Amino acid sequence: MTEFLVLQPPDKALSVLLENLLPKPEPEVIASAQALGRVTLQEIVAPHPLPAFPRSTVDGYALRAADTHGASETLPAYLSVAGEIPMGAVAALQVNQGQCALIHTGGMLPSGADAVVMVEHTQGTRPGEVEIMRPAAAGENILTVGEDVQPRQVVIPAGVRLRPAEIGGLMALGITQVVVARKPKVGILSSGDELVPPDADPGPAQVRDVNEYTLSALVAEKGGLPVRYGILPDQASLLEQAASQALGECDVVVITAGSSASARDLTAEIINQLGKPGVLVHGVNVRPGKPTILAVCDGKAVIGLPGNPVSALVIASLFVSPLVEALLGLQQARPRPRIPARLTLNLPSQAGREDWIPVKLLAGEGGYQAEPVFGKSNLIFTLSRADGLVRILPDANGLAAGELVEVYLF
Amino acid sequence: MTEFLVLQPPDKALSVLLENLLPKPEPEVIASAQALGRVTLQEIVAPHPLPAFPRSTVDGYALRAADTHGASETLPAYLSVAGEIPMGAVAALQVNQGQCALIHTGGMLPSGADAVVMVEHTQGTRPGEVEIMRPAAAGENILTVGEDVQPRQVVIPAGVRLRPAEIGGLMALGITQVVVARKPKVGILSSGDELVPPDADPGPAQVRDVNEYTLSALVAEKGGLPVRYGILPDQASLLEQAASQALGECDVVVITAGSSASARDLTAEIINQLGKPGVLVHGVNVRPGKPTILAVCDGKAVIGLPGNPVSALVIASLFVSPLVEALLGLQQARPRPRIPARLTLNLPSQAGREDWIPVKLLAGEGGYQAEPVFGKSNLIFTLSRADGLVRILPDANGLAAGELVEVYLF
Repeated sequence: MTEFLVLQPPDKALSVLLENLLPKPEPEVIASAQALGRVTLQEIVAPHPLPAFPRSTVDGYALRAADTHGASETLPAYLSVAGEIPMGAVAALQVNQGQCALIHTGGMLPSGADAVVMVEHTQGTRPGEVEIMRPAAAGENILTVGEDVQPRQVVIPAGVRLRPAEIGGLMALGITQVVVARKPKVGILSSGDELVPPDADPGPAQVRDVNEYTLSALVAEKGGLPVRYGILPDQASLLEQAASQALGECDVVVITAGSSASARDLTAEIINQLGKPGVLVHGVNVRPGKPTILAVCDGKAVIGLPGNPVSALVIASLFVSPLVEALLGLQQARPRPRIPARLTLNLPSQAGREDWIPVKLLAGEGGYQAEPVFGKSNLIFTLSRADGLVRILPDANGLAAGELVEVYLF
Repeated sequence: MTEFLVLQPPDKALSVLLENLLPKPEPEVIASAQALGRVTLQEIVAPHPLPAFPRSTVDGYALRAADTHGASETLPAYLSVAGEIPMGAVAALQVNQGQCALIHTGGMLPSGADAVVMVEHTQGTRPGEVEIMRPAAAGENILTVGEDVQPRQVVIPAGVRLRPAEIGGLMALGITQVVVARKPKVGILSSGDELVPPDADPGPAQVRDVNEYTLSALVAEKGGLPVRYGILPDQASLLEQAASQALGECDVVVITAGSSASARDLTAEIINQLGKPGVLVHGVNVRPGKPTILAVCDGKAVIGLPGNPVSALVIASLFVSPLVEALLGLQQARPRPRIPARLTLNLPSQAGREDWIPVKLLAGEGGYQAEPVFGKSNLIFTLSRADGLVRILPDANGLAAGELVEVYLF
């Protein structure tokens, strides 16, 4: 058992977790049409070139470039129209010297032609004849075979989260099935003697559990499969039994501890009994969320979060989200969305500690303003009033009003 | 039938559409636990206060503030410990003058106490007695009833897209069912004689349809329900029949036209026959996507998109996405995620037209660089190589290399 009782900076703490876990995404084959938001596990290779035939990129006339040399508005080239290129079929016609063919955008270049002149640069005078008023270079307004994608070219690397554009790319190549990472199962347990389920009527000293639901939603949003294990009392044997079951059934276990120091210590003890090496990080130098626990138990990640709903959700976005992404094999995480804004207030902070402050964005003339949302109790509504979080780095004593900050949307 | 043949600026075009449509979201009641990403249709009102009982915000001793007046490290106040406050239950004990009770974070304040002193500022000396080394003010480290949320307070306005934080807020109040906007059904038709389905083997002049799939994914991502109506030939009667069926079954119909000018004109004619007032905007001053059609037919929106996959997806993000959000009743759209970055190249642009350029983000020491991704044919892989879009406003002649731009992620 390796245990660091020193507070770790958040970035370092995450590295320690991932280095000890060595996440291995598992494959699943699904329909490409259903693959939005899933992560590729293998690189996608083009089975054939795109375009697969030479195509016009404009509406106009397919012709031989040599026939247009010197053509101008005052001295146009006169070509006879051999016919119209049908969409979706190979033209029967052939473009010979002195001839051209009407072609539409995306149409297949007819045999004999080597360029297309846009319809705007032509003029019809007599039936069956067209005046070409500009010279064309060979290859102009044409896409040649493979100009977009070469056969066996890697078009989507492994570890990419599929967006609408990638779904379209797969379809363009006829790849209607795709190997993606299986959604990692994240077991979520709430412990605390004061907790009751959301549909219960709490007694005088009881509160409803929200962490199971905020964390499930976060996990689902990041592409994991949340599994709720319910509420457990602060009692070692029951908590250990439930955590052990969750560890057997899931890829990750997340335990939110009761809010008191003793409840948090209990969580650490239980995690250490779940498997080796056990707790790797106990205490992270971040506010909110100092009492965070990161562990690996027999090859699976176990995370202990503070019971306070705001702390639990902020810390989950720092540790659970990147963990889910690592288990999905996400290689090319796109930048975390953020909005530049100016702070409305001074935000003092303790040097040496990283702070995450919920802020509301206010649209103004000179761009956005970021107004800190404070809540004495860090109730979950503090976060629901906020648009995102501002990070205060550990080497700062705070941020000044008017300072330009980046607001990480959540 | 109102038809503007002048090119409209994109913002103006969207306004014209929405003003003629007057979107009316429809209600649906769902479980709050399943409501991630859905949009509230009514304001959420707190049925009771939060907290519902006075709570300690720290681990420490609940006491009477008056008993700690003048207490210091050298001259502590000595109080007798009346007991420990259990979590989740009302304490049987009462804190009288000269007494205190051990309390945990979130515990219910016992009768008689009016403040809590943190355990760090106390010292145990003899059993049953504790030294208080700091004076406490009445109300210190305590949350009173309703301090977070008052009864009948609006905690989530109507028209808000629910994130994990809001799901938690609903649970905290015991609101396990929520009224959200029904997902608007968006019927998607692809027209083009050259198109075949993605699982088909295209003939020599054919291409696979991708627009039905990219647009379905985009609609799903924004919270709509895509319905695919398949591929239709560029033939008025069949296209009109399919569009009319889609209009009967869906809230919105999106038709991607063939790439040629004649195919696009056909789409406009058909849309005008679907219902009144018909085409409102034909032609938008934006690149890519000039031939966009926006229409309202008998109270439903119909959008004609260019057939080119890149244009179709970019234009859909400008018109279909905000339309879906309007039909969801989204009032407080959060800022569109963007990343500040410096351009790697000059981007010339035609003044008077709005341009959207796909860019790839490169992480560097001084922040991100935005590298334009060009593709001669605007194949869908142009977009899959990009992280987002840079907008060139119509009053600009372009953007200079090194300029700081905002990259809208997609």
